[in-house]
Amino acid sequence: MRDVYVIGAGQSPFGSFPDETYLTLFETAYENALESVGGKLDPDRIDEAFLGTLGVGGRQIGLSSPAVTEHLGLHGVPTTRVENACAASGYSFRSALTAVRAGTADVALAGGYEVMTDTSADQTKWWLGVSGETEWERMSGTTFAGVYAQMASAYLDEYDATVEDLSRVAVKNHGNGAKNPKAHLGFECSLEDANSAPGVADPLNLYHCCPTTDGASAALLASEEVAAEFDGPSVKIAGAGAASGRVGLFQRESLTSIPASVQAGEEAYAEAGVTPDDLDFAEVHDCFAIAELLAYDDLGFCERGEAGRLLREGVVDPDGELPTNTSGGLKSKGHPIGATGTGQVVEAFFQLRGEAHVQVDDPTYGLTHNVGGSGGGVTVHVFERTEVDA
Amino acid sequence: MRDVYVIGAGQSPFGSFPDETYLTLFETAYENALESVGGKLDPDRIDEAFLGTLGVGGRQIGLSSPAVTEHLGLHGVPTTRVENACAASGYSFRSALTAVRAGTADVALAGGYEVMTDTSADQTKWWLGVSGETEWERMSGTTFAGVYAQMASAYLDEYDATVEDLSRVAVKNHGNGAKNPKAHLGFECSLEDANSAPGVADPLNLYHCCPTTDGASAALLASEEVAAEFDGPSVKIAGAGAASGRVGLFQRESLTSIPASVQAGEEAYAEAGVTPDDLDFAEVHDCFAIAELLAYDDLGFCERGEAGRLLREGVVDPDGELPTNTSGGLKSKGHPIGATGTGQVVEAFFQLRGEAHVQVDDPTYGLTHNVGGSGGGVTVHVFERTEVDA
Repeated sequence: MRDVYVIGAGQSPFGSFPDETYLTLFETAYENALESVGGKLDPDRIDEAFLGTLGVGGRQIGLSSPAVTEHLGLHGVPTTRVENACAASGYSFRSALTAVRAGTADVALAGGYEVMTDTSADQTKWWLGVSGETEWERMSGTTFAGVYAQMASAYLDEYDATVEDLSRVAVKNHGNGAKNPKAHLGFECSLEDANSAPGVADPLNLYHCCPTTDGASAALLASEEVAAEFDGPSVKIAGAGAASGRVGLFQRESLTSIPASVQAGEEAYAEAGVTPDDLDFAEVHDCFAIAELLAYDDLGFCERGEAGRLLREGVVDPDGELPTNTSGGLKSKGHPIGATGTGQVVEAFFQLRGEAHVQVDDPTYGLTHNVGGSGGGVTVHVFERTEVDA
Repeated sequence: MRDVYVIGAGQSPFGSFPDETYLTLFETAYENALESVGGKLDPDRIDEAFLGTLGVGGRQIGLSSPAVTEHLGLHGVPTTRVENACAASGYSFRSALTAVRAGTADVALAGGYEVMTDTSADQTKWWLGVSGETEWERMSGTTFAGVYAQMASAYLDEYDATVEDLSRVAVKNHGNGAKNPKAHLGFECSLEDANSAPGVADPLNLYHCCPTTDGASAALLASEEVAAEFDGPSVKIAGAGAASGRVGLFQRESLTSIPASVQAGEEAYAEAGVTPDDLDFAEVHDCFAIAELLAYDDLGFCERGEAGRLLREGVVDPDGELPTNTSGGLKSKGHPIGATGTGQVVEAFFQLRGEAHVQVDDPTYGLTHNVGGSGGGVTVHVFERTEVDA
């Protein structure tokens, strides 16, 4: 199995863009990714593309990914659309990694896109609902916030965590996102703001929920041989893990853990030969504030149930031991569904290159964690800054 | 890059099944695939799954593939939904192949499913339309049959082929499908029947169009080491090709060729080290009769423009030089969109094992050809019967 590197990554601004389409948004992400390589990668060298989207809003539904590569001028390149709900581009990244590992591609494009703000709020709620389990969740009227609210209630009941800890996720992530010019909600919020926001699904309030967002992100993956052609620190994909889980929350043994996160994390750590202690930063899936707490527990950032403490003690702050969601996370940066997984990769890439907006000190290892639905599919990737021999 | 084998394949019946769901249909396909291995493959050995669907009808839209693997009891297995319109499972098969080639998986499940008959005819037309180009085709009112009708008109105008040659596709494929107990429209039709059917989109009539169908199909792919554990002739994936193409017909230079088919075919032949002359049978994408003629030309079964002759001279009949669509093809077997690509693999598998319903004489090489939309994405695979050393 060949070693694989991320040689470039980029994103469009995340936000609400009535004058953009999924095509133009992805074009921006792609151009930014190409530019991050140093402008030296000939697009003709892209052998295959994997693009993730749930298909919310926008125009083209079937075959949207070939429409994107056509728009980029990548004519003929085999292009696969991947859809695993909110983990669509975590999985498109995984497929691109596999293609380069196999030797099917020397250079592969991974990415994702979503246009969400061109539908009414009701339609968006419906679209998001389709990622939840259908028969017993969606059709009984449970919204996506409602699913995570059940997890939050159980977590607060079972462990030493409070609604204020949920608000701390918002305060931290907005603090980071305020420094990220591509963030959707790039403003700071105080603990008081976050605590006093209107309710959405008890105990989750508005500041405990990410926005619906338009955006796109892209990463360029390459074999070691190709990566060696380019200057600067290289970003190796040191470990990859993925797992499916019960799509319906009601079918899981516990409401306070996402087993697919545990399994994907363990696999990625093992492949990279690291433990959570080795990580210098992480981008975790914070679609709702409770999801970030679950991620801390499930990915071994702390003992189970101690996630609240990490927030209260500042462990996950930019100057803490394990800065988490320095990009702003889904909460502040935004959550254009299909673009989120590779959006996290963009942050990992620039962190390891020392060029992030909220830069952590000289990192070697970083992790990305992308969740589909409420845990029906998860990917975890561990990235390592290293030098490639030319 | 490791050699990869198909060690099992199976499908559900194709048809209209109001009492089935995508879950139960895929379960049938999967159980049949497991049984074809000889009942000896422990499902726990499946490392990863790739499942294709457009998402027509049915219930679960986002995350439907993890819902399927959950239903099969494959808990935790990384599961990716692939969507490339009608080539969804041609591409899911490609992804499974890549995973085994890379060593990410020793055994991978590929497949697809679609439930189409639970929506009204109008809804189905809308769903199918989403695979065509949106702005200039679908929104201007062009149906999918209309797109292929344009190709048919151009082909009949440009080359020595007639409407009766289109009808010959129906006669041949229904003749084959009548012997396939899993075919949707498993009855014979005469040339007179096919010629005199009501019009759909001139020059295409009802017998020149495939039906909308419910169904599922599955294939089990494995490394050579795993394949060697099982008795009987082995089916090696000798060559794989894939290509994207202009999604909108109006953006292509010619209406009488699908460039992605040409590119994918050439790549698959080169990888397998064969030419079209080496093929003993083929399953090609005949969503409309004209598509089968284009496939003959694009895949090099004849000189360009001679597809009609192959039909008139019986070259593609079961007892001809290159029997094509012995399963009944999309026309008679049916076209449950996401299930079609791996459905073709099912036929190739049983042909090479000598167990097909319309068995060709002692075949060594077979080809499958799966088209998304009107050519926005194509996969071609070449299969070889061989012996694996234990």
